[in-house]
This record gives sequence, structure tokens and C-alpha cells, in this order.
Amino acid sequence: MYRVITISRQFGSGGRTIGKMAAEKLGYKFYDRELVNKVAAESGLSEKFIEDSGEYANSTTSLLFNLSLAGNYGSGKMSLYDEIYVAQCRIIKELAEQEPCVIVGRCADYILKDRDDCLNVFIHTDMKNRAERIVKLYGQTEKSPEKRLKEKDNKRKVYYKNYTGRNWGLVENYHLALDSACIGLERCAELIAEIAGK
Amino acid sequence: MYRVITISRQFGSGGRTIGKMAAEKLGYKFYDRELVNKVAAESGLSEKFIEDSGEYANSTTSLLFNLSLAGNYGSGKMSLYDEIYVAQCRIIKELAEQEPCVIVGRCADYILKDRDDCLNVFIHTDMKNRAERIVKLYGQTEKSPEKRLKEKDNKRKVYYKNYTGRNWGLVENYHLALDSACIGLERCAELIAEIAGK
Repeated sequence: MYRVITISRQFGSGGRTIGKMAAEKLGYKFYDRELVNKVAAESGLSEKFIEDSGEYANSTTSLLFNLSLAGNYGSGKMSLYDEIYVAQCRIIKELAEQEPCVIVGRCADYILKDRDDCLNVFIHTDMKNRAERIVKLYGQTEKSPEKRLKEKDNKRKVYYKNYTGRNWGLVENYHLALDSACIGLERCAELIAEIAGK
Repeated sequence: MYRVITISRQFGSGGRTIGKMAAEKLGYKFYDRELVNKVAAESGLSEKFIEDSGEYANSTTSLLFNLSLAGNYGSGKMSLYDEIYVAQCRIIKELAEQEPCVIVGRCADYILKDRDDCLNVFIHTDMKNRAERIVKLYGQTEKSPEKRLKEKDNKRKVYYKNYTGRNWGLVENYHLALDSACIGLERCAELIAEIAGK
């Protein structure tokens, strides 16, 4: 029996939707936007800013530059991003303590790594299926869907590496990693609910 | 419907056993030792040598040294390891063509990447459960089980990187990645059979 489920996901993989469906099946709370809202309320910053901070890395600059920007390594000073991350850690830990829940993104798998009642899930799928999904959900933009996906993935990877020291998307960090197009969104949600609930 | 299932696995995770169970459920052929035997018969080398070649990397030497040893990069010459790999590629492709099957290890996920009827699975679990399993199956040795596991994982990682150019154990390379201790061996096999058979 797992009281907390974390969902890490590639952009456009349907991970958020799957997390929401799994939460409904289990009668668990679902935190995605709500988490952003809570961090915004605590920090006094806008929801937009908090949301963007989770993917702040500028893909046109190098990984090392991003890491130094965000982390202020060695300076002993916390950046605004660091402060948001610290607030987010505290809120995620509190939420996990309060009641059974599903938490999407925001390094929750790492932040809750010391709990033994936490099921860590990763949702991904191939570029073609993700491209179709983002165009359907968010429409076309000047950039190709493939470019948008690569940029977003890269930002999540850098964010995760910066705050956890881990590489994003390694099988060993998840109890369950599913290709959502191969397995189907509904079936993914059922599997998560089954494994979490047993 | 997937005609071919590849199982990549951490040492001691039960991946081989799960693969065998899934093959039985589906009525598919199962290739693990049989694959080694076939490569041995074709190459004239001993089964022991073929088996070891799949994990030839010496963990006391550096990754770069191993890569240069095995690959003969730039020299235009094939090492014995390369020749075994080439024979193995051909045999794996032939087997996949012949009849529905489950293939364990040996970069089969990469070798068969151009088939769209191939389900790629990764089986892993935490150090504690794997250590218990290898001691139960293979007994104690002078080395601690943790050291044996780390060495074996490292060898598989180097072997995979050398011949595929990919990093071993990235979620995006598998349709399904399962923690065998969390989900249970029998249930893992059922899930693979269900997803492959649908």
C-alpha cells in the first residue's frame, strides 16, 4: 500500500492526465496546479513565476551556465530559484504527511525519497505521439512541436539535475516506468492504482 | 500485439525468471542460454567465453580503457569481442524473424530497434533485494553481494554503451520498466504478457 504517488513525466506524454485518473481511482488528492498555487501563496511570487521556475533553464545557454546561475555554487548565497525550491520541498513534505496524494513533477520523487510509502512513476512516450498530443492540446506555434518538446525535456532535465544531483529518467529511480502510447492512458492509470493500492 | 519481447535487467533483479514466466504465459520461445549456445556453435568458441564476452569489461580498469580495448576504435580492425557481437546480432535478428520469442540481455532491445513488433522491458530493483536474491541463488563468495552487484552492473553498462552508444537503463528506451520487488515477479510476468498480447 503506497500512500503517496509521484509522477515524473516527459512533456506531452499524458503523465499529468494519467496521474489525475489514478488519483480519482484511488480517492487520493491530486497536486499539480494546486502545488504551484501553494508555493505562490507562501512566497508572495506570482503563480506564473513559480510555474516557470520549475523549468527555468534557458535551452540556448549551456548546462554549466544554467547550473551556476541557479545554484550559486560556492558563493554561499541562495538564488530566488533556490528559495522557491526550498519552499516547495517543505510544502511537498507537508502534503505527503497530511493525506494520501498524487504529486506531479517538481522533483517530488527525490524530495520524498526517505518515505517508504511512496510509489515513484515515470511516464514517457516517443516523439511522434508526444508531438501529436501537444498540438492537439496547445495548438501549433512558430516552433515545430519536436523543437518545443526537446526544449521542455531539456529544461526539466537540467532542473532535476541541479536540485537532486541525479540524472533524470533513470529506470532505477522509479518503481514503474510506462510508455503511455504503447500501454494506453487509461491502462497506465489502472496499473498505477492497482500497484499503489495492493 | 508484440511478437518479440526483449528483457534487459539488473543482475539479481529476477529479470531472467520473469522473462521465462512471461514466455510460458504467451507460448513464446525463450532465449537466454540458448542464445549463448548458438553463438558458440557458430563461432567455434566455448560457451563460457561467449557468456563472459557479454560482460567482458574489467571493473578495475577505466571505462575509456575498456572501450578502446573492445572497440579498436579508429584502427579499422575488429576485436574478437566485436566479432562475437556481430555474430550475435545476426542470430538475434534471425530468431526474431523466425517465431515469437522472449530474448534476455545482449543488447537485443537495440539490435531489434527497427522492428515495430518488439516490446522492450527493463527489470530492476533495489540493492537490498538483489543482494538477498544472489546469495540465495548463487551463495556467498569472498566479495560482498553489494560489490558483486556493482561490478556486474558496471560491466553490463560498459558493454551496452560500447555496442549501442546508448546509456543503459534510460526509461525512454523501454516500453515498460518494473521494480520486481515492489511489483512481484509473478505480477511482472503477467503485466508483460498482458501488454505484449493485447
